[in-house]
Amino acid sequence: MTHGAALRTLRVHLDERSYPIRIGYDTLDAAGPAIAEATQATRAAIVSVAPVAKRYAPTLERSLRKAGLRSTRLLVPDGDRTKNLRQAAKLYDALLEFGADRSTAVVALGGGVVGDLAGYVAATYLRGVPFVQVPTTLLAMTDASVGGKVGVNLKQGKNLVGAFYQPRLVWMDIATLESLPARQRRAGLAEMIKHAAIWEAGLFERFERDAEKVLALEPTLTAELLERSCAIKAEVVSRDEREAGVRTLLNFGHTLAHAIESLGAYRGLLHGEAVAVGMAFAARRSEALGHAATGSAERLAELLRSAGLPVGVPKHPRRAYLDAMRVDKKRTESRIRFVVLREIGRAEAVPLLPSEILPRRFPEPGWAAGETA
Amino acid sequence: MTHGAALRTLRVHLDERSYPIRIGYDTLDAAGPAIAEATQATRAAIVSVAPVAKRYAPTLERSLRKAGLRSTRLLVPDGDRTKNLRQAAKLYDALLEFGADRSTAVVALGGGVVGDLAGYVAATYLRGVPFVQVPTTLLAMTDASVGGKVGVNLKQGKNLVGAFYQPRLVWMDIATLESLPARQRRAGLAEMIKHAAIWEAGLFERFERDAEKVLALEPTLTAELLERSCAIKAEVVSRDEREAGVRTLLNFGHTLAHAIESLGAYRGLLHGEAVAVGMAFAARRSEALGHAATGSAERLAELLRSAGLPVGVPKHPRRAYLDAMRVDKKRTESRIRFVVLREIGRAEAVPLLPSEILPRRFPEPGWAAGETA
Repeated sequence: MTHGAALRTLRVHLDERSYPIRIGYDTLDAAGPAIAEATQATRAAIVSVAPVAKRYAPTLERSLRKAGLRSTRLLVPDGDRTKNLRQAAKLYDALLEFGADRSTAVVALGGGVVGDLAGYVAATYLRGVPFVQVPTTLLAMTDASVGGKVGVNLKQGKNLVGAFYQPRLVWMDIATLESLPARQRRAGLAEMIKHAAIWEAGLFERFERDAEKVLALEPTLTAELLERSCAIKAEVVSRDEREAGVRTLLNFGHTLAHAIESLGAYRGLLHGEAVAVGMAFAARRSEALGHAATGSAERLAELLRSAGLPVGVPKHPRRAYLDAMRVDKKRTESRIRFVVLREIGRAEAVPLLPSEILPRRFPEPGWAAGETA
Repeated sequence: MTHGAALRTLRVHLDERSYPIRIGYDTLDAAGPAIAEATQATRAAIVSVAPVAKRYAPTLERSLRKAGLRSTRLLVPDGDRTKNLRQAAKLYDALLEFGADRSTAVVALGGGVVGDLAGYVAATYLRGVPFVQVPTTLLAMTDASVGGKVGVNLKQGKNLVGAFYQPRLVWMDIATLESLPARQRRAGLAEMIKHAAIWEAGLFERFERDAEKVLALEPTLTAELLERSCAIKAEVVSRDEREAGVRTLLNFGHTLAHAIESLGAYRGLLHGEAVAVGMAFAARRSEALGHAATGSAERLAELLRSAGLPVGVPKHPRRAYLDAMRVDKKRTESRIRFVVLREIGRAEAVPLLPSEILPRRFPEPGWAAGETA
């Protein structure tokens, strides 16, 4: 493979704000010129967490320097609790200290938390400076890097403050995933499978065949499937940038996932794992409620299981799940737009009450965690 | 005059985000239905300062209630120092407390500070909720309500954090200006004169004739001239929403005004007054540097003086002004895009060094404050 060359380029079209996603293997040392071209910046502020920065920032910095960009490294603490207004304020101060102006690019080097936080700061500092994503987790590559959602948490809840702000460039280097624990790769794969399940049966079949190769980070194949997965999200988002309609489909599996996360059941369950559980559940419910023919649910569960992902619902009283689902949606009407799977490759949002979503016997026997997961 | 009817409606076109400015006299009690229609909101959070809220919120609230909107009143302390991240965080908390969702409108009732702060919160809460401006100062009506600039200050400087976010509706009730001190009306008039000076000689002539009537708030005439002034800003902004080119012209008078403000000379000088001084100066310099034929500067100064606005430059060492101008622009190149007045109704941005902008003898004899202001 040619060192430094991108294997794939995907263009995300969002009216006047379109941008390229460049997917490659071992390409971090070529990011500098691409960032310079996409942003026209003269400086770059790299936002990252210590372990990621230690491993990858030097190569990125060298590449930026070669492209004529002065750079600085702004480290934030690791973890979702870091994504708050206080950290954003610290980053504003650090950017001012660096003398950052509108020709300074903010470069997020890391996972979803870093991307959300750095993106929010880029969206609001001086009313917006150029933003670049260099995602280093599979989840951030397939999910957070498309859609323009940036933001921070408040103590009352996640992502309550934010913006829709598109990056100028997303630079994905698959080689950076090699240092990612296998469990986190699987969690990222869950979101890729989600895109296939709601939109494209052909891609779903590819995952049935090649999920293992993605988890092993086989470069050409991973780049191809990443591109197709991102293309689905990009298509959904371009049709519906401000999430009124079709974008809801991206919530497939997330109703239960959010409930699981807020219940604190499986403390330490990764988001992608909770989504896997939520998707398997949603597919079963789709069949049980008569929204889908039999078979899709088992096929989805089988793929998730074979990718090493959990599908069993953590045991908690039904009452607790009902409350958690209501809390999650307390700011809207009592019905939830629940995404059902019509068949593999086709989903639809249906307004349902939490009590309709959860069967009388829940968690269902035979599906609860510990029994099948 | 028909009670409650808008005298004028101006539509601001910014691609998919266009919105109406409705200008009337004694129309606060008709704002509710207009807000409901423009935002499709079911609730409204009125952001204001105590004295303004005391006077005008009850009428607005009654009108919202009649239109079927539940409302709450969120008071912030008065003054520019209030426009900060801490106040924004308090407003997020208050919005959550109110149960605000994406069908909750944030309504700014007050001057520029309230509009900037409330607008920033509206732009970022839940990644953006509907925003409505009900400006109650002439400056906010003519300036802050068009252009979509919202934001807060950091301790390092003004408006360093913010967004471009368009309101869904601007509702101007000229009667709310009756409680505004005459000095503040004059300061607002300065920005209206600015719009005329850079863009439309015919409107400038109207001000030469009718400035007094605007200051007296004669309804029909004030509404007309407000509309024309806003139309100029709207035209400039629509051509150049993200302020790369022609939008610079709106900075006419602001290079020196910012320097005056940052020097703290004339502590308590209103922004519009500083702009008046800055415009008179810029027009003189335009002639002295050969960018304009003789006469425009004196004509502009005469209009400003007759409107009771200062035109004399506060006495401070030239060195201090040079430093202040450089600090203001430290985040860009050393040349400043200084807006020169070619003639009444036509301006142009010219890149100049601070040392070129300020004459050797500065403040100029005969123009320093205390001598002519």
